[in-house]
Amino acid sequence: MREIASIQLDRSNSVPLYIQLFEHLKKLIVKGNIAKGSRLPAIRKLAEQLEVNTVTVVNAYKLLEQNGYVYSKTGSGVYVAPVRYIAVQPTDMEIQVKEDTFFEEEDIQLMSRGQITLSENSINFASATPTPDLFPVEDFKKVLIEVLDRDKGQAFGYHESNGYKSLRHSISQFLNMNYSIKAHQDDIQIISGAQQGIDVIAKALINHGDYVLVENPTYTGAIAVFKSRGAKIVGVPIEHDGINISVLEKYIKLYRPKLIYTMPNYQNPTTFCYSREKKQYLLDLAYRNNFFIIEDDFLTDLNFTEDSTPHTLKSLDKYDRVLYIKSFSKVLMPGLRIGFLIAPSEVFKDILQAKHTTDISSSGLIQRAFDLYLQKGIWGRHLDYMKEIYKDRYKKILGEIAALRDLGASIYEPNGGLNLWLTLPEGVSGIQLYYGCAKRDVLIIPGKIFYTSNAADTDRNIRISFAAVYPEQIEKGIEIVYNCINKLLNKTGERTTYYSPLI
Amino acid sequence: MREIASIQLDRSNSVPLYIQLFEHLKKLIVKGNIAKGSRLPAIRKLAEQLEVNTVTVVNAYKLLEQNGYVYSKTGSGVYVAPVRYIAVQPTDMEIQVKEDTFFEEEDIQLMSRGQITLSENSINFASATPTPDLFPVEDFKKVLIEVLDRDKGQAFGYHESNGYKSLRHSISQFLNMNYSIKAHQDDIQIISGAQQGIDVIAKALINHGDYVLVENPTYTGAIAVFKSRGAKIVGVPIEHDGINISVLEKYIKLYRPKLIYTMPNYQNPTTFCYSREKKQYLLDLAYRNNFFIIEDDFLTDLNFTEDSTPHTLKSLDKYDRVLYIKSFSKVLMPGLRIGFLIAPSEVFKDILQAKHTTDISSSGLIQRAFDLYLQKGIWGRHLDYMKEIYKDRYKKILGEIAALRDLGASIYEPNGGLNLWLTLPEGVSGIQLYYGCAKRDVLIIPGKIFYTSNAADTDRNIRISFAAVYPEQIEKGIEIVYNCINKLLNKTGERTTYYSPLI
Repeated sequence: MREIASIQLDRSNSVPLYIQLFEHLKKLIVKGNIAKGSRLPAIRKLAEQLEVNTVTVVNAYKLLEQNGYVYSKTGSGVYVAPVRYIAVQPTDMEIQVKEDTFFEEEDIQLMSRGQITLSENSINFASATPTPDLFPVEDFKKVLIEVLDRDKGQAFGYHESNGYKSLRHSISQFLNMNYSIKAHQDDIQIISGAQQGIDVIAKALINHGDYVLVENPTYTGAIAVFKSRGAKIVGVPIEHDGINISVLEKYIKLYRPKLIYTMPNYQNPTTFCYSREKKQYLLDLAYRNNFFIIEDDFLTDLNFTEDSTPHTLKSLDKYDRVLYIKSFSKVLMPGLRIGFLIAPSEVFKDILQAKHTTDISSSGLIQRAFDLYLQKGIWGRHLDYMKEIYKDRYKKILGEIAALRDLGASIYEPNGGLNLWLTLPEGVSGIQLYYGCAKRDVLIIPGKIFYTSNAADTDRNIRISFAAVYPEQIEKGIEIVYNCINKLLNKTGERTTYYSPLI
Repeated sequence: MREIASIQLDRSNSVPLYIQLFEHLKKLIVKGNIAKGSRLPAIRKLAEQLEVNTVTVVNAYKLLEQNGYVYSKTGSGVYVAPVRYIAVQPTDMEIQVKEDTFFEEEDIQLMSRGQITLSENSINFASATPTPDLFPVEDFKKVLIEVLDRDKGQAFGYHESNGYKSLRHSISQFLNMNYSIKAHQDDIQIISGAQQGIDVIAKALINHGDYVLVENPTYTGAIAVFKSRGAKIVGVPIEHDGINISVLEKYIKLYRPKLIYTMPNYQNPTTFCYSREKKQYLLDLAYRNNFFIIEDDFLTDLNFTEDSTPHTLKSLDKYDRVLYIKSFSKVLMPGLRIGFLIAPSEVFKDILQAKHTTDISSSGLIQRAFDLYLQKGIWGRHLDYMKEIYKDRYKKILGEIAALRDLGASIYEPNGGLNLWLTLPEGVSGIQLYYGCAKRDVLIIPGKIFYTSNAADTDRNIRISFAAVYPEQIEKGIEIVYNCINKLLNKTGERTTYYSPLI
């Protein structure tokens, strides 16, 4: 192991030695300079060679193990792992495939967040979450350190339940500049991510037995929250230009809902955007029928056209009926767990109270760092960077996926966001396609799992996300999807046989 | 303003110039070198004098304003504030005193967390939260930076809903060493603070109409959660050696509760600890009657005797009936928003699901930093430091408060924690005493607000916390409480007249 013995550690560097050692060893393993299955040097020996404390080596080995590069055999030593399980986060979780219930809600979400994958070489069209290499880590580190130097202990004290005032002020300005949304800082409630936003709203507004309308198909994480409050959930079909208005009006009369949950721009999973007219009409309906609208906005920023960003419902909300939730998970960093909501004044106090009983307040340190991040204008630069990257991938995938039209599939072109929504050829099941692709190391999400009902026509779609695939993977991945569809078309008699993926 | 013109900024320092300028100005204002009410130099002029960009001065002035040191008059300039409103966190909130409902639940919590105070010179016996000057900010900054260097983008990705694996492992070891609690890392659920722990448990276990027993008096934040789930809440009296067992047994038969919420060590607000026998008996009751116990442990560590730390229920829990919640808010830093819970295997999956729908996961960055903090053993050192400080304050306040016994008050001596619980002399109302003290710039919490019922005998106590008072304030503060009690004793006829505090 000459490579290991010749590792050079830089003692003048502020990066701790064990992290430097970890990085060196990782590189050697990834490049193949240390063979898979081979044993790493004994701790004491390596410590002597590199003239470091044994603790340094122990910690570096521990990190390698936590990251899946090596494993240890008790009493024998540390070995390079034969195959690395490359979940975006080290995780023990595997998809539990039960043929009757099919998927659990959490499994879908784990797939969608890139926390489950198939193998080291798999192509992941399931994850709608950017990969960590795109996160602005260095910029965020700088603002974190600046905040700690500036605020010291204050950064770790209790914070106001509605959120750090200066951050609410920055967000108010940011909304005015970027979305034509006029919201005073006191209308803004800081939340620990969009999921908490939905949870807090449900707590504040929904009582046992209330009706809640949702787009159908929709985000399963929202349905889980409404169910947990004892709400009755009714799905309203969504079309290319937004929710189906005649069904919506019928259900409003029938169920007198308290709330409707919507994603008006680049809806998940369909990628559809509401037309300006439907947005306006939905607002009118809310006013006339006295219900509230949740607008879950997680992708409006990722618009690939030359036109200006699509309108949010909130920017048109003259009746003050919209609870606007904004998450930064998809464009900035999912692990920040920071977002905000704008609540109508009629319900603001209830929202605040619900947030308070939920977790008192969001992390003050992260709020202060994010505030500085917004103030310094880094957000705008980062957004431009992300848009460039995703626009390229979007064009690439559209080019490749066009071939599927020859097989009878139809593809909607959203010109924004991180997903594509495919309607499969007659006779091809999305669930079967999922299994077929998984066997070939390609992960997609079957559309069926986003539907509120189990009707037969809900297995005709798949969602293909391009958030976590590199351009070179797109070509190969779409080819595999093509081949799988083709195979399914040629044996339509066998549609009821599901086979398990190699997970 | 010679002092301002002679400020020296250090351009080689990594601390940004505007923060340096802010610190210099702050010091001059606090020391009185810049008179209250005087106008700060014009932005352009000061920028020229110090040879900095005008933005640097603008930002420094903005920080001063946010921290309450100065205020700006449009078109006129920036002035040193005559009195600084020193909330621990800058906050707009004031206590809303309504004579009928008296206090809102949130107001009490804000007081208890030191987020409301009366004035710059007030003595705050209401806050049970350590002040920011005691937080280990530098240590935590180091581990944060180390984590960012080590994990880069991984620190900001989605994290597992049950929590970062390495942190769960560290906690498992920490519990074994410090509390004789044997919990595997997979029995541990990371939460964003104790309040979220209660919320998540309520979501997982409580359905509309279920009965929940609580100690009476108890923490109002827990009651708010149970109410929000539609539970029926029944209070069981707590005594010096723990909950009243005969009432408890009666209520168990009568209501068949699903859950009991307890704080077995240094209970809030009473400071009582359960005897070993009562702990054991409660566990037996839970097993025989098939209910779960929430053990909210936030102060067990702060034990001022030479004896070992009091037993937690969880360490005695051979039937696996205890949901153990541990928060680090009171001993480490409240703003971390990190804690954990240990859940019985029977309900672990429900807990995990509830956490998932609540906010997906807690901040990965904070989890990773806290993990390193535990691994490096800094926690133990910090705990010793906090114990020394609070033991001194405890002794000091016990010495002073003894005088109140001459007036007929009785004081329980918990030998741990951050609070004292006083029973007032016959005829003295805790609420009246609160108002009397507030008029004299001393903040206490009337015991009444912790009770589940409105019975007449619930206004006989006050809670005095020593978390946020310095030794020199204790003497003066207790003297004022003494004088107020004395005054109330001499005019017992007027007990129904409440007067507003000077807030």
